[in-house]
Amino acid sequence: MKNTIGREIPEHVGSREVIPFQGAFAILRDHRKAPRHQKGAPQNENKVLSSIEAAIDATGLSDGMTISFHHSFRDGDRVINQVLDACAKKGLRDLRLFPTALFPVHAGVIDHIKAGVVSRIEGSMNGPVGAFVSQGGQLTEPAVLRSHGGRWRAVEAGDVEIDVAFIAAPQADPYGNATGIRGTTPCGPICFLAVDAQYAKKTVVITNDLAPYPVHPMEIQQGWVDHVVVVDEIGDPENIASGTLRLTKSPTRLLIARLTTDAVVNSGYFVDGFSFQGGAGGISLAATKYLGEEMEKAGIVGSFAIGGGTKMLVGLLRRGLIRAILDGQAFDLDAVESLHEDPAHLMMDPGMYADYDSRGCATYKLDAAFLGATEVDLDFNVNVNTHSDGLLLHGIGGHQDVAAGASMTMITIPTLRGRIPVIVDSVTTVTTPGEVVDVIVTERGLAVNPKREDLKECFLAAGLPVKELADIKAEVDGMIQPVRKPVFGDEIIAAIEWRDGTIIDVVRKVEGFE
Amino acid sequence: MKNTIGREIPEHVGSREVIPFQGAFAILRDHRKAPRHQKGAPQNENKVLSSIEAAIDATGLSDGMTISFHHSFRDGDRVINQVLDACAKKGLRDLRLFPTALFPVHAGVIDHIKAGVVSRIEGSMNGPVGAFVSQGGQLTEPAVLRSHGGRWRAVEAGDVEIDVAFIAAPQADPYGNATGIRGTTPCGPICFLAVDAQYAKKTVVITNDLAPYPVHPMEIQQGWVDHVVVVDEIGDPENIASGTLRLTKSPTRLLIARLTTDAVVNSGYFVDGFSFQGGAGGISLAATKYLGEEMEKAGIVGSFAIGGGTKMLVGLLRRGLIRAILDGQAFDLDAVESLHEDPAHLMMDPGMYADYDSRGCATYKLDAAFLGATEVDLDFNVNVNTHSDGLLLHGIGGHQDVAAGASMTMITIPTLRGRIPVIVDSVTTVTTPGEVVDVIVTERGLAVNPKREDLKECFLAAGLPVKELADIKAEVDGMIQPVRKPVFGDEIIAAIEWRDGTIIDVVRKVEGFE
Repeated sequence: MKNTIGREIPEHVGSREVIPFQGAFAILRDHRKAPRHQKGAPQNENKVLSSIEAAIDATGLSDGMTISFHHSFRDGDRVINQVLDACAKKGLRDLRLFPTALFPVHAGVIDHIKAGVVSRIEGSMNGPVGAFVSQGGQLTEPAVLRSHGGRWRAVEAGDVEIDVAFIAAPQADPYGNATGIRGTTPCGPICFLAVDAQYAKKTVVITNDLAPYPVHPMEIQQGWVDHVVVVDEIGDPENIASGTLRLTKSPTRLLIARLTTDAVVNSGYFVDGFSFQGGAGGISLAATKYLGEEMEKAGIVGSFAIGGGTKMLVGLLRRGLIRAILDGQAFDLDAVESLHEDPAHLMMDPGMYADYDSRGCATYKLDAAFLGATEVDLDFNVNVNTHSDGLLLHGIGGHQDVAAGASMTMITIPTLRGRIPVIVDSVTTVTTPGEVVDVIVTERGLAVNPKREDLKECFLAAGLPVKELADIKAEVDGMIQPVRKPVFGDEIIAAIEWRDGTIIDVVRKVEGFE
Repeated sequence: MKNTIGREIPEHVGSREVIPFQGAFAILRDHRKAPRHQKGAPQNENKVLSSIEAAIDATGLSDGMTISFHHSFRDGDRVINQVLDACAKKGLRDLRLFPTALFPVHAGVIDHIKAGVVSRIEGSMNGPVGAFVSQGGQLTEPAVLRSHGGRWRAVEAGDVEIDVAFIAAPQADPYGNATGIRGTTPCGPICFLAVDAQYAKKTVVITNDLAPYPVHPMEIQQGWVDHVVVVDEIGDPENIASGTLRLTKSPTRLLIARLTTDAVVNSGYFVDGFSFQGGAGGISLAATKYLGEEMEKAGIVGSFAIGGGTKMLVGLLRRGLIRAILDGQAFDLDAVESLHEDPAHLMMDPGMYADYDSRGCATYKLDAAFLGATEVDLDFNVNVNTHSDGLLLHGIGGHQDVAAGASMTMITIPTLRGRIPVIVDSVTTVTTPGEVVDVIVTERGLAVNPKREDLKECFLAAGLPVKELADIKAEVDGMIQPVRKPVFGDEIIAAIEWRDGTIIDVVRKVEGFE
């Protein structure tokens, strides 16, 4: 069957029945969330265990179960590998991995897949694991990718039942209260796993800094935690910024950032109380910087910005240019420090950020957002998951959540990466549908979604270089080199869930290249 | 049938099947909590309504439904009366009231009961409404009283399904984020209703200070809130301390406080990392003051104290005598101010405080607690709900939760109130069973629960005046005046729930007096 954006979707993905995507806000639920476990506790209890092996025993983790992890250490994480190695040592098989995201540091997962320790993955796969899975890497069910808000929703809906949540905690107390912003190796808030901690049959906090009760702030609360494991190492904070976070020096990208800022300033949204989400990509960071300068110049104070927290956003807060930061994760240690020091730098869990099945998301209050893409197409659909070669190399992050929520969603992209085109006729994979994308900003000009004539008029009135998307594409069509075109098999290796739980697209196995 | 402490309990209380009390930690559940409602929200939404009447219409509130409220304004609350008056004006009938507590200011509820607007109450009734109900005041079902933790548990267990939660919020933003510690009339944290906000079919925030998004801290979150109503007045902060909070000047009570402190100091618990809960009663406040002096003298730093927040506790925190305050409610405006200023003054919801069906409560980490009583008996059972005249005049508060949790639970009481005895053969109503009470402190000496020989030895070694409880009782038996003895009818007017959901006692109608 085809969903409403014309993507061919099977009736089942693995053993799971598919509800096809029907539009960004089409689903209206009046159901109940899944019921959480009632748990009890004796009056005096020692929850502390001395090893991950002991926690595996204590939780009764066994073959076929689902285990979850957060990604706040990103490429510096040391917990997922330790837990999987311990599982392998114990002879466990057929585990379903439910991380918020995997990174290159988790390439060892591939061996665990090959050995049958891991047989299913639901979660983002940045890099090698995604590439392996894309090429048919022996998972028994297709992977499922969800946005930050979509993952939270899925747990609350009971779509994924977690047996054991393993939570890397830079500081925890013996009763299980845990935070990511204290300790010797802080990684930023660890609230991504708050929903796992509340729903898992068993919740295990893994820390390298056991501190006296009560540890605070409490992203993870004692009442959710069954065991606390003390280990030597949980992650390297130097790597929390890995991959994305660097202010660009590329003149092309700086030009895009400039144009993005000009568009915001002339959009009609740029008034007192203005709000925005700037991502951690190079263009977004530069646009955030320029935007701050424009706010200062215009005397505008923003109501809030959504993080990932960065030094850049903290600077805006401290200069009084925004009244608050709402933050689910930290992209640098300046942001971690600010979470201690700035009372208006607020932690926000992904439920508050973007849970579709809630009475309102922080993303819905955004005026503007700057987001990236691997590809966009002439229907304004956006791909952030696969590359043009068909390989699944990135997660969704908050892309869907922010795009759906912000009044003006801007995709900031160069028209070429090397000589590979970014604007295509039809994206390899739809992550985010064109209906929630308002403006595409390139170094060659802005393209405005036809349903936003109002914005187009604002931009034209301001003398901004507004063009048709097809025309921008045509400008570069002569410069591209032949792309390494994938040969797709029939096998579906991953499903891309829209934030409401429907399937917006699937990713097929890459059999080879033309 | 009789429960394990020998109280006669019927098989049904009203339409509800009774599980009799079986011991403080006897129930071990492996069930699921009740499922919360899935709700959705459009991208752009105006939640703001201009009147309580409009909220009644918008929520679909109708006859027979259950409405809930918090008590953070205590005797200064203006919301419950406004909502009930509006319900009456709309012709609603047969409502079930589910407040955390009612106070004398809510005497108007009596008229609503008489008129059939309110037909059932589950919650504390301090003063006139309790007295009215005690004497057979026309409720169609017996009232149910629960502890702070027990109420949270009951909502999560689905024992009480809330149709509309009405939440008085000293400050809220148009999207429903709300706090009790900001605004023109702060009342302290409003997290008591966080569970109602999450479970109610509809959640309404009522504020007199609508502030720009995002209001923080967010005891109540946007994702839980359906409507925001702006009214002129929600409560008077001057009354949040009403009733209980005054440092005693009575020499008898100061003597009890002194003895309580001496007992703590000599209990073996008085070491670095010591923790305690001091209540807001006059004796508790004085004991907290003395305890601070002893800590200072001994060079001991406590790990944490549990509030209700008071100026006294804030002083200990600021003097470095305790490392943190965990606080679910504020008993004075100094505590409210401290919640802004002191990073280690932490808000805690009743779930974290004391939910029996969780993996651990803050109360379970307490070394010592000072609690009050209207009566205690020779089995160390404690009554805080009724007076000797049989009238139901007080709620449970955190009494059960703290008594069950603390390693050393001390009941601090004068032996006489006027010429009415406080130590009796058998308490009129059991709120808290003797098994979780360790020490009874009176102006005539300490009585130690026989199961705590260890404590008795510590106290005797320190030369403290340890006596048998029966002997203390005998000392005053000659001084008492004949008590106004109630004549109880058969009708059960209220059930006292133990914090695990079982029934520890019932309260019968007072037909008259002997």
